[in-house]
Amino acid sequence: MSEMDNSVRRGDNVLLYLTRKKKWLVRADADKRVHTHLGYVDLSSIIGKEYGSSIMTSVGERLWILKPTIVDLILKAERRTQIVYPKDLGMIVSMTGISSGSIVVEAGTGSGALTTFLANLVKPDGHVFSYEIRPEFIEIAKRNIERAGLRDYVTIKQADAKKGFDEKNVDVVIIDVGDPWTLVGVAWEALKGGGMIAGISPTMNQVEKLVVELRNTGFVWIESLELLLRGLEARPNMTRPSMGMIGHTAYLTFARKVLKDR
Amino acid sequence: MSEMDNSVRRGDNVLLYLTRKKKWLVRADADKRVHTHLGYVDLSSIIGKEYGSSIMTSVGERLWILKPTIVDLILKAERRTQIVYPKDLGMIVSMTGISSGSIVVEAGTGSGALTTFLANLVKPDGHVFSYEIRPEFIEIAKRNIERAGLRDYVTIKQADAKKGFDEKNVDVVIIDVGDPWTLVGVAWEALKGGGMIAGISPTMNQVEKLVVELRNTGFVWIESLELLLRGLEARPNMTRPSMGMIGHTAYLTFARKVLKDR
Amino acid sequence: MSEMDNSVRRGDNVLLYLTRKKKWLVRADADKRVHTHLGYVDLSSIIGKEYGSSIMTSVGERLWILKPTIVDLILKAERRTQIVYPKDLGMIVSMTGISSGSIVVEAGTGSGALTTFLANLVKPDGHVFSYEIRPEFIEIAKRNIERAGLRDYVTIKQADAKKGFDEKNVDVVIIDVGDPWTLVGVAWEALKGGGMIAGISPTMNQVEKLVVELRNTGFVWIESLELLLRGLEARPNMTRPSMGMIGHTAYLTFARKVLKDR
Amino acid sequence: MSEMDNSVRRGDNVLLYLTRKKKWLVRADADKRVHTHLGYVDLSSIIGKEYGSSIMTSVGERLWILKPTIVDLILKAERRTQIVYPKDLGMIVSMTGISSGSIVVEAGTGSGALTTFLANLVKPDGHVFSYEIRPEFIEIAKRNIERAGLRDYVTIKQADAKKGFDEKNVDVVIIDVGDPWTLVGVAWEALKGGGMIAGISPTMNQVEKLVVELRNTGFVWIESLELLLRGLEARPNMTRPSMGMIGHTAYLTFARKVLKDR
Repeated sequence: MSEMDNSVRRGDNVLLYLTRKKKWLVRADADKRVHTHLGYVDLSSIIGKEYGSSIMTSVGERLWILKPTIVDLILKAERRTQIVYPKDLGMIVSMTGISSGSIVVEAGTGSGALTTFLANLVKPDGHVFSYEIRPEFIEIAKRNIERAGLRDYVTIKQADAKKGFDEKNVDVVIIDVGDPWTLVGVAWEALKGGGMIAGISPTMNQVEKLVVELRNTGFVWIESLELLLRGLEARPNMTRPSMGMIGHTAYLTFARKVLKDR
Repeated sequence: MSEMDNSVRRGDNVLLYLTRKKKWLVRADADKRVHTHLGYVDLSSIIGKEYGSSIMTSVGERLWILKPTIVDLILKAERRTQIVYPKDLGMIVSMTGISSGSIVVEAGTGSGALTTFLANLVKPDGHVFSYEIRPEFIEIAKRNIERAGLRDYVTIKQADAKKGFDEKNVDVVIIDVGDPWTLVGVAWEALKGGGMIAGISPTMNQVEKLVVELRNTGFVWIESLELLLRGLEARPNMTRPSMGMIGHTAYLTFARKVLKDR
Repeated sequence: MSEMDNSVRRGDNVLLYLTRKKKWLVRADADKRVHTHLGYVDLSSIIGKEYGSSIMTSVGERLWILKPTIVDLILKAERRTQIVYPKDLGMIVSMTGISSGSIVVEAGTGSGALTTFLANLVKPDGHVFSYEIRPEFIEIAKRNIERAGLRDYVTIKQADAKKGFDEKNVDVVIIDVGDPWTLVGVAWEALKGGGMIAGISPTMNQVEKLVVELRNTGFVWIESLELLLRGLEARPNMTRPSMGMIGHTAYLTFARKVLKDR
Repeated sequence: MSEMDNSVRRGDNVLLYLTRKKKWLVRADADKRVHTHLGYVDLSSIIGKEYGSSIMTSVGERLWILKPTIVDLILKAERRTQIVYPKDLGMIVSMTGISSGSIVVEAGTGSGALTTFLANLVKPDGHVFSYEIRPEFIEIAKRNIERAGLRDYVTIKQADAKKGFDEKNVDVVIIDVGDPWTLVGVAWEALKGGGMIAGISPTMNQVEKLVVELRNTGFVWIESLELLLRGLEARPNMTRPSMGMIGHTAYLTFARKVLKDR
């Protein structure tokens, strides 16, 4: 991330930023042109420019040239499934301790958003093994992970996770499917002793069933939670919380595997 | 994290877990004994045991032997300052994209909690440079970072950040001081183009001043937010949100450096 | 509310209900017809029908005939100002104890929404005196209060509240203006000993100034708060919080007048 | 509330206020003395003093003499059951439109807190009929309602509400029991057409069952919600939300009776 040359190179993912609501993720290509409601930009003209500098559209609107974060890429990625929100992605990191070198198994690749986020954290020494049963999602996920440049850190398997994970001794198993309680047993088998499971579930009924199954299967320190994110509109002498707000995304459930008979 | 041998080794940090409220962070040492209100454990007896297994105290209470996550270490660390909470740590990660290889500058080391968390994420190829003016905090922070085994990824500098950071072209600058607006200019100098600043502030007035300064200094995509964490008590047919809740920790502010004249 | 005859009478306000998002407030009049995107209803045909029964539109859609609550009237009233939300209206009642017989002074009539709500609570023995400086709002407010049938319980005064309220010995003063701190002195003069002031303010800066002024003027038990309302979507085995949510309406501040020298 | 004489009379409920955390509800009696950790006060000495004035304890601490609101009385009342919180009391008022003249049926008197609050709102022309099966609670509730001076507006019945309410054509039925779904049918029978039901339930499972039963029984406009209350600590240049917060009290569910075959 911090090479001295901080310029746009051919093939880079680039975020052209006008406002928080108006921004475009493009690939710096010699022959492409991006059209906005505020004029167009020839992408060849951004190659070689420094990140943080700007470019004018054909109608004279200034766009800032930014290097997208991993979450910027995820939020702009092709998808057909509900996204995992940044607040929830972050909480999974801080609760599980996933970092460079971690071995993670994910059930429910979907469009690969969480997969991409995790791959970016486990690199260069860790790996994410992600299970998905629906072939059409696997194609989308592969394109998204490829685009983020993280192909080397991910293995996607088209398989029914209920039949068991191939991996053993893994650090963290993440369950992002509609019936998470059905995967508790196979997650236990895949985890190393003390390893962590994390479940992502929109409804309280899912959490209820998941927690019961965790208690019965050999997990301790079970906790479920949700995060509410609210913006703060800071303006001199007129600061107030944002009126727009998302009321709910998902509950997160965490627990650690124990060896009951030892 | 995922070496095949998942056993306690001499010198390991180990978390002895009874319940969510009762757990002890210890160092696996041959000659030490840890005393709890539920009897004692000789630490020599846990060396060689597998993580996830258990040990009985002198009065027959079962404690689970867990490997602490980085956040477990932080929450049990020696400190004299307000902690940054896991929800906020996680949000900083997902918003800034800090990961292996990132170069991060932090102003306000405090007890080193955030420093430790960041070091764990940037390893093995990145680095955290942390500035602190008060020598007594530096000693505490160093012990905490050392204990977490992350000394190689952190440089603590006793210096007044207002006079400028030594580093240039950094990916992220994190401001965790009482007057964050005073460091916006030096943060801009240290950041690479498009680099990200993150501020952590408990009061709305701090955010108000910080945001004004960011607007004036050459930052775009400025957003401030807070996270509210609420537990969910999942029990069969009796599921409800937790009654205990922390109402406020800090506001987080994010922005990206732009090169105004380019 | 509870006369034995529960039928629609000529001139009644009636709510025609299709769904939570689609409902029409009408006046039961012999010669009117209400048009919806789902056909029309002749209002003469609802006169004499029992509340709770239904009527078919010209295209065969069933609308329920409901008697609007005072909040239903407010939310459908003509207005040019920000509404006070039901959650905040309710909190003002429970914190101040306003009920039948209370004498209330309001600064900032606006479109009369809060005025209407309060008048409905103080009837039949209390009264609301409401101050508004802008004549165009007074006309709107009067129409709204008249429509709710509460004219006898409200006196609107076109006057600058900063110059003082005419009333003395009042139970509660409610401040709903942009610079609430400027009215703390005149509110103190109007209130009886131990009487309550309530302020409604969208920004934290307003609250900060209001609270300082309250402390300096002779008020105790000063508290500011906000309410967050979140829906719960209850469906068999799929219950979860609502995704739509309003992040902020207003802060409410309460305090009680004391006689400092006695 | 607003008689010109605003002085303490023998027998009045009086709130002696030191701080938000330290306040005492007493009855102004000639022969009583109230002891605090800050000295004592002879209650005879407060009779005749104006509300809003103060009195010194035997050790020279100033206590403010305040007239308690109805919620002050409730929060200091004798109780053995979970209280309904002011935020929830207020929301019930604003959603149901209960006001002077309303006829309300309550199932689950408990310690009479909600009963007291409602009686204060329906007076002088309305009435609250409250059902409770446990005689020990009825005694507590009666004392609390008597103390608040609201005996004339309440009828408590020792009966099993499942067998039906005696009242017909009522405006609002409030259900505050553990199995609210069992009372939906009898509530429908008691309500007038278009009348409102309100349920108070701590768990999501209760809400789920209640909502199903409401849908099946002849109610429309069914909505469930919760309110989160957070304090704002307003101090010059240091304003921030309160750290202490109650995470959950109860879900509130509202619906209106319709006449399905008419």
